[in-house]
Amino acid sequence: MRWLDRTSELRGRLDGVNLPRPVLLAGDGVAALLLEQGALRECALAEAMAMKPTLAPLLDHTLLKAGATSGEIAGLCAEAREHGFASVCVNPAWVPFAAAQLAGSRVRVCTVVGFPLGATSLAAKAFEAEQALRDGAAEVDMVLDLGAARDGDWAHVRADFRGLRNAVPRPAVLKVILETCLLDDEQKRRACALAAEEGLDFVKTSTGFSTGGATTADVALMRSVVGEGIGVKASGGIRTFEQALAMVQAGATRLGVSASLAIVGAAPGPALGY
Amino acid sequence: MRWLDRTSELRGRLDGVNLPRPVLLAGDGVAALLLEQGALRECALAEAMAMKPTLAPLLDHTLLKAGATSGEIAGLCAEAREHGFASVCVNPAWVPFAAAQLAGSRVRVCTVVGFPLGATSLAAKAFEAEQALRDGAAEVDMVLDLGAARDGDWAHVRADFRGLRNAVPRPAVLKVILETCLLDDEQKRRACALAAEEGLDFVKTSTGFSTGGATTADVALMRSVVGEGIGVKASGGIRTFEQALAMVQAGATRLGVSASLAIVGAAPGPALGY
Repeated sequence: MRWLDRTSELRGRLDGVNLPRPVLLAGDGVAALLLEQGALRECALAEAMAMKPTLAPLLDHTLLKAGATSGEIAGLCAEAREHGFASVCVNPAWVPFAAAQLAGSRVRVCTVVGFPLGATSLAAKAFEAEQALRDGAAEVDMVLDLGAARDGDWAHVRADFRGLRNAVPRPAVLKVILETCLLDDEQKRRACALAAEEGLDFVKTSTGFSTGGATTADVALMRSVVGEGIGVKASGGIRTFEQALAMVQAGATRLGVSASLAIVGAAPGPALGY
Repeated sequence: MRWLDRTSELRGRLDGVNLPRPVLLAGDGVAALLLEQGALRECALAEAMAMKPTLAPLLDHTLLKAGATSGEIAGLCAEAREHGFASVCVNPAWVPFAAAQLAGSRVRVCTVVGFPLGATSLAAKAFEAEQALRDGAAEVDMVLDLGAARDGDWAHVRADFRGLRNAVPRPAVLKVILETCLLDDEQKRRACALAAEEGLDFVKTSTGFSTGGATTADVALMRSVVGEGIGVKASGGIRTFEQALAMVQAGATRLGVSASLAIVGAAPGPALGY
């Protein structure tokens, strides 16, 4: 059975949970891996699609725009509870509020550090992450120091990863956002290799605040470098079930999206696939 | 002589400096205040313009884009030295490098905190600011907690201002970026009044990363609330001398710009006024 290693984080979270619909954990253009009633099942993609699987437990339900209000964050949390999303992804100032809203649920609070420019000091990123964990975050998405990467200063990038991993010890989840639209392929590969070496939990494509978002080509490249052991999060510009499915088929195991309701078929959205 | 209080910060910095050209400190559509050979001079605007005054000492020469490289930051610093800009404005990760580049010059290092979303925790903003001062920054531009402002939680906004003022004691300069495009006029007024009450040095219009930049209407509104004692910085979308002049005439005493060379007439730019 393929994709077992890749989906271990996902299966760990879903263990013992009563799921109303089969969850699509992984796939390619031909086959798919489903989790249904606690059991894994690999089958043809067409057969999997006929079962109307959900991607809900793969989604980080995201609201990072400047000026978001408490009412909007509360709504985000309520939607995440209702649909069983992996997390809500909010700015650090909202972590205490979101954690209170989500108390007693399995939905995690995810936040961002050095966001969206990746150009704060290593010490400030570490402080921000530690504060976020104290405030109730369980997942931290840091932004790669893009200037250092583009300067070729990989020792600095490694120090940044190591400092953040120390600040965000397991079981807290640490992701690094590469901002792929600002890197060439060699820089993407190098950053992914360092992230794997330094024990990060996920590599992630995009902030959603730059010149481009996730592409299947970047997700496939990132998966090819990190192997099957760690997560790949696709984010930025994913608005439909078809786009989300394409990212999973390219190797993503988490999706950062604001159009989560459209993707799970719970809200009007462009071209829902099922 | 008008505008004396408004321009005290500017004159303080220029005291005893040998300036090659008269500096336009303030003005309106009719009159202007110049600093020439150490002497202040109020005259008709047309007469001031005939002297080809410079705005260079009013400019924060700015490069905040993600992925800026060391070569770009070094170039920014060299340009600031050559033209006598007030500061370079760079992301926190670049403060130590910029401070080294500018050692021995009068050009200050300005940086940004909680940038550009304004949604990090109060503790993280204060830590980031303190780290920036240790790294060599002399000016800190913090972003207003926009969610708190839009929620009407002015006690939180006040605490944020007070925490940052404690973290950035004078003579370090503390500005607050309102991100005016996301606020209504009453929210802008309220934030300006609190900034003045809490002893901040400047109110500033925009990050340059949101849906809109500086407008003369916003600059005039901000000046009307803060009075003559503190600074107003216009930033976002100012690309020509005419635009810069209009901001000064509306009440600005500092301009955050990346098109600094065009504005001082040292580089090709659209529609230079002189």
